Amino acid sequence: GVPADKEALLDQLEDLEFDQWALLLEALPIEERIAQWQLIPDDMKAEVLVEMRADARLSVINALPTDVLEQLFGHLTPEDLIELADSLPDHLIDLALRQMGQKQRQFFEHSNQFNENQIGRYADHNLLILPQNAKVYDALRLFRRDIPECTDALFLTDRAGRYAGTVPLKSTFGAPGHISLVELMDEHAKPLPAETSLEESADIQEKSDYVLLPIVDSKGMLIGRMTIKDGFQILRENHESENMARAGLSEDEDLFSPVWKSSMRRATWLGINLLTAFLASWAIGLFEATLQQVVALAVLMPIVASMGGIAGSQTLTLIIRGIALGQISKGNLTPLLLKELAVGGFNGVLWALAIGGIVAYWFSDLMIGVVIAVAIALNILAAAFSGVLIPVILDKMKIDPALSGSVILTTVTDVVGFVTFLGLGTLFLI
Amino acid sequence: GVPADKEALLDQLEDLEFDQWALLLEALPIEERIAQWQLIPDDMKAEVLVEMRADARLSVINALPTDVLEQLFGHLTPEDLIELADSLPDHLIDLALRQMGQKQRQFFEHSNQFNENQIGRYADHNLLILPQNAKVYDALRLFRRDIPECTDALFLTDRAGRYAGTVPLKSTFGAPGHISLVELMDEHAKPLPAETSLEESADIQEKSDYVLLPIVDSKGMLIGRMTIKDGFQILRENHESENMARAGLSEDEDLFSPVWKSSMRRATWLGINLLTAFLASWAIGLFEATLQQVVALAVLMPIVASMGGIAGSQTLTLIIRGIALGQISKGNLTPLLLKELAVGGFNGVLWALAIGGIVAYWFSDLMIGVVIAVAIALNILAAAFSGVLIPVILDKMKIDPALSGSVILTTVTDVVGFVTFLGLGTLFLI
Repeated sequence: GVPADKEALLDQLEDLEFDQWALLLEALPIEERIAQWQLIPDDMKAEVLVEMRADARLSVINALPTDVLEQLFGHLTPEDLIELADSLPDHLIDLALRQMGQKQRQFFEHSNQFNENQIGRYADHNLLILPQNAKVYDALRLFRRDIPECTDALFLTDRAGRYAGTVPLKSTFGAPGHISLVELMDEHAKPLPAETSLEESADIQEKSDYVLLPIVDSKGMLIGRMTIKDGFQILRENHESENMARAGLSEDEDLFSPVWKSSMRRATWLGINLLTAFLASWAIGLFEATLQQVVALAVLMPIVASMGGIAGSQTLTLIIRGIALGQISKGNLTPLLLKELAVGGFNGVLWALAIGGIVAYWFSDLMIGVVIAVAIALNILAAAFSGVLIPVILDKMKIDPALSGSVILTTVTDVVGFVTFLGLGTLFLI
Repeated sequence: GVPADKEALLDQLEDLEFDQWALLLEALPIEERIAQWQLIPDDMKAEVLVEMRADARLSVINALPTDVLEQLFGHLTPEDLIELADSLPDHLIDLALRQMGQKQRQFFEHSNQFNENQIGRYADHNLLILPQNAKVYDALRLFRRDIPECTDALFLTDRAGRYAGTVPLKSTFGAPGHISLVELMDEHAKPLPAETSLEESADIQEKSDYVLLPIVDSKGMLIGRMTIKDGFQILRENHESENMARAGLSEDEDLFSPVWKSSMRRATWLGINLLTAFLASWAIGLFEATLQQVVALAVLMPIVASMGGIAGSQTLTLIIRGIALGQISKGNLTPLLLKELAVGGFNGVLWALAIGGIVAYWFSDLMIGVVIAVAIALNILAAAFSGVLIPVILDKMKIDPALSGSVILTTVTDVVGFVTFLGLGTLFLI
């Protein structure tokens, strides 16, 4: 019956974890989202908000009455408050800070010095720390109390709290108790400066021998740790925001972000694109007289432009990957360009022949087949050339080619395609 | 002087790690790549090959004489041989297997039962294993010998070698020596079935409380482990191959893959695109007579198509993310469609007015402004509609919308854009 099903559903909801609750809420239109919010166990609510995307989180915060909010944010950890800080009104941040102990408040202030792309902002404070002069039995005593998740090293500090070294947990197990921990320090282990960007932190973490890294500020003070789980999350979020940015979307965009907010955000990208589209139109407009006489050219224009665009994106994608991996330099740029031009030449000739043949047959006109064949071949070559040079130039200009490379490339292949095709048409078909 | 510089360069090369050598070799044209290969310290060569992409790796293997290869592959671990298996000729695989101990050979055979997308294939064998009846002091004795990298749990097996449970390392530290490890087992820990896909394994790893997971085969035998570092690598490789596949490239594609090989691979994607381009041309061809009379339509066509394409990609990207996160269901499809149509309506009207105004002014013709405005608005609405439905339908058909969604979407927005614009032009401008 219905009540049994409902109970089963509620049972299922009970098993949800923070991130699952967050995904579930985000998947709901705003009114239902607020209704569903009530079903979250009270002790999980703050954590669920932390997991949500900024837009979705705001939609919940805006719908809750002040007293509920005050109760909710009365017991936040500094790490959670940092995540929420951007979407909370000031009086709630103050409230949360007032409820914290002095040490917690200090953690928050410390993290808050760093910006959203610096690892120091997200430092967590579950570390095993011992003074520089501690011995193996001190370490073993510490382990017996509790070892935080994701821990395979402990850290030594001097009296002022400055980072002094990393001791791998495993090296303490076999060692006699009276040995000084300094002797077991890993000479190769390096702390992570708090100013390091998130992306670079994840790279360093991946290559490290440890599953956690100590974070130090500019004075060498040990301020917290980054775990490999944080690295995992950075990687996922980078991937997602890259996908979103490629379509001109904000990473905060939520399935049910308010219509006007979504619309205004997306309008910017449509506007940029419109400029490039007008550029293509202007190029076509140069050949109005030709188009009037040979209307077949108008029919075939998109083929020339789109073959160039696709061939160019292939080269572009390969080069962007190479740049991201640090593989493109002055030394290999020329051979790379020659190789891409050779590939472009091969595919240019192949598809020029195929398309030229089809078009000559379609319009029963050999010459139009020849014109489109030459235009296709030239545009695919131009695409290979631009596909190599555009990302390299953008990278030199410190612009991320993964975001803007594609728009610029297709503008080039559109304009080159239209001008070559219509230009050749003007010369040979009239 | 020159000799000093050269020495400095060689010093730098000496510090390179496996993956850095691999990236360096991949960045070089084939002849230089072989020359550089000679500079790698002999004991690193096999490992560097393991790190390289399939195409680049083959280019090196093909250039080396048989006796060098035999020496190189005489001492491979089973894990390395599995990575190389696809690019090695059979006689070298046999050679490598003959040099292995029986246990190693067994590991290889076991891994080789699983396919390239199953985690069992990549199981590594550095685990802490104890029999089910072992006690805490057995564990402590084991730790004293050596703890493998990325380890925060040990595993219990029954006499037959079947997985029996996970014991977190930290829970053994405080416990008295005579306590049975079974009592310290984590009831919530679950082993990873060897058939699990790589992507799912990374998801499970990310959510797990441990930095390593035990892998079991279908009979419950403990066959190896997956670490969170493996998860990290899976995530990176997935991201990369997704970016490559979106441009119709193979993930094995190397900066200096042979020209004919690259060309043939890329030709397929160009061919698929050509079909969609011909579809667009065919749609335009329906209006040849109109184009002949109003050539301005030919000039403006790309604007209508491209605005639709961009607006559609934005919706598509949002929905694809939602599908990947499991957030799209029958329950929210209708409100989602309505919201995207509302955003489309807003941006449709905004840009219709802007573009209509510019065009009316450009061609000094109010009516052509009205025609393009209506076409833009309709195409942006159609784009919102397709942007929601195309990925949902593809997903139902078990086709990854991240790969093919964009091609199908732009075909729809091209055809709808051309037909609406030229159709309206036929009705109102002639």
